[in-house]
Amino acid sequence: MTDRPLLAALRDVETLPLPAFDTEAAEAARARQLELTKPPGSLGRLEELAEFLAGWRGQARPVIERAQALVFAGNHGVCAQGVNPFPQEVTAQMVANFERGGAAINQLCKLNGAALSVVALELDRPTRDFTAAPAMDEAETLDALQRGADAVDPQADVLILGEMGIGNSTVAAALAHAVFGGAARDWVGRGTGSDTAAIAHKAEVVSRAVAQHSGVSGIGLLAALGGREQAAICGAVLAARLARIPVLLDGFICTAAVAPLHAARPELLDHCLIGHASAEPGHRGMTSAMGKRPILDLGMALGEGSGAALALGVLRGALACHNGMATFAEAGVAGA
Amino acid sequence: MTDRPLLAALRDVETLPLPAFDTEAAEAARARQLELTKPPGSLGRLEELAEFLAGWRGQARPVIERAQALVFAGNHGVCAQGVNPFPQEVTAQMVANFERGGAAINQLCKLNGAALSVVALELDRPTRDFTAAPAMDEAETLDALQRGADAVDPQADVLILGEMGIGNSTVAAALAHAVFGGAARDWVGRGTGSDTAAIAHKAEVVSRAVAQHSGVSGIGLLAALGGREQAAICGAVLAARLARIPVLLDGFICTAAVAPLHAARPELLDHCLIGHASAEPGHRGMTSAMGKRPILDLGMALGEGSGAALALGVLRGALACHNGMATFAEAGVAGA
Repeated sequence: MTDRPLLAALRDVETLPLPAFDTEAAEAARARQLELTKPPGSLGRLEELAEFLAGWRGQARPVIERAQALVFAGNHGVCAQGVNPFPQEVTAQMVANFERGGAAINQLCKLNGAALSVVALELDRPTRDFTAAPAMDEAETLDALQRGADAVDPQADVLILGEMGIGNSTVAAALAHAVFGGAARDWVGRGTGSDTAAIAHKAEVVSRAVAQHSGVSGIGLLAALGGREQAAICGAVLAARLARIPVLLDGFICTAAVAPLHAARPELLDHCLIGHASAEPGHRGMTSAMGKRPILDLGMALGEGSGAALALGVLRGALACHNGMATFAEAGVAGA
Repeated sequence: MTDRPLLAALRDVETLPLPAFDTEAAEAARARQLELTKPPGSLGRLEELAEFLAGWRGQARPVIERAQALVFAGNHGVCAQGVNPFPQEVTAQMVANFERGGAAINQLCKLNGAALSVVALELDRPTRDFTAAPAMDEAETLDALQRGADAVDPQADVLILGEMGIGNSTVAAALAHAVFGGAARDWVGRGTGSDTAAIAHKAEVVSRAVAQHSGVSGIGLLAALGGREQAAICGAVLAARLARIPVLLDGFICTAAVAPLHAARPELLDHCLIGHASAEPGHRGMTSAMGKRPILDLGMALGEGSGAALALGVLRGALACHNGMATFAEAGVAGA
């Protein structure tokens, strides 16, 4: 993306023209599913995923030749409130680990054939502590949004999004609480290892932060309560939406990152799947409020895009069946 | 296996010496998981699976070099009761489809790197209608058990089991009802496409069949209410148990097939994972009664081993992380 078109897009996000899901391609995919050598519907979610990919890619028989994975990393001023047992340096150390190929996301991208890029967003300049002030100003927010949008490979067939940032389960809880309401405690979990007392403390911090920014809504929440990796994820999701690239969001933090887009206009996320149901207890409430069913449910809570990269295997399975199976006619198999 | 040792083994199944899960290897795997660059437990089920595979293979860092998939096919006399809308010829037609590479299981095995073999068990000689007589005699049952055991590659690191057999969701419901009790209706679902009236009819057939063989229990149920592919699955599971090869069972029909082993001695299934939660409503009750949690839950109900072959991708993901990730020390990442 050039000339910062996101700025204009975001100013008019409610009326921004969005490319439509190709219902004709999806219906052609559906028709093909009914001809394949299996009882109708017996591949369950795999059939739905094949149709979903067909509609977004505009092809009755979509393929995943290029799978891109982007992990955005940022640091957070709210760590000053003691919300995370790990030191903030771990964010940069984990980025180095990603770059050397030593993290979970590296193994899962390699296994499932995704090209991984890591985008570290000014790790030495954490956002402000949002219990006292907006986390970012408008320029910082737009910059991170643009970094996210610019990182998207326009030739990708599917985009996996992940994040790394010590303290960002607190950021996620704050965004979820601001967008979906309830009590702060509904959205706060163990994160990277908080015990019961620390969870209560996180909830108190989240409650205070959301009260502090109670006048802010929609995309404005990204600046008030977000972080650079959250804004970059939103930028990537918007760029993918405009390019009709289906997105696999990871778990709790990734889903919370796009909650401001959901608040502004739910259709902005029509091309997004949730890779897995996080072990973070707030995730279920969020996905249900967004009307999305996670693909996997394996008790994972790592971030990095790990659950989304694993779910790529399910998408590949869906398309392997969709494109590779014989029809009843081809196989000479009798129908019911 | 030679000299039909299954016969002897099955006569004394309750005291048959079983090789143990290697707790030392599993504990070494657990220790490694705690050193990898992630919060402890954050890979959820993937960590458990790595430890499970370590214990069964007796290696702290197990690998899946050889994944074998076996699909057993059989025909069923109970089709005379009109329990399935497809003609019985479809079993052989689908076996031909497997052999030509046109079915879902072919695509999923190819995707996840499993070597597929299909074993057709006397398709032109269906079992007897078990509403009137035992489905098989002892010799037929042992023969099918032995065919299953003989098909197992002793060098496999993991074994995927699947089945094909028109009418076998009724067989599965009968086995589940006989082993786990409840009402026949609890175990009967749509199968390959029954409507509400047909489901009620299936339940009536199942109820009648189980009443007919109410004096039979344990492995004897395989002969009374089973079929050749069910017996072969049990034979393969026993051979894998003795060779400490972990097994990925598929869904409803595969799980029901091993219910007689569970009834005889639950430890016979300690090496078995359930690949996916079937859309067949009876599956949940069965897996829960067996104390097993399916890996995937994607609304699939195809059989053929398709859900197990898809779950192989999750096992591969678990081992990719377990074996490929850097430790905190290797990566220079600080702990909490």
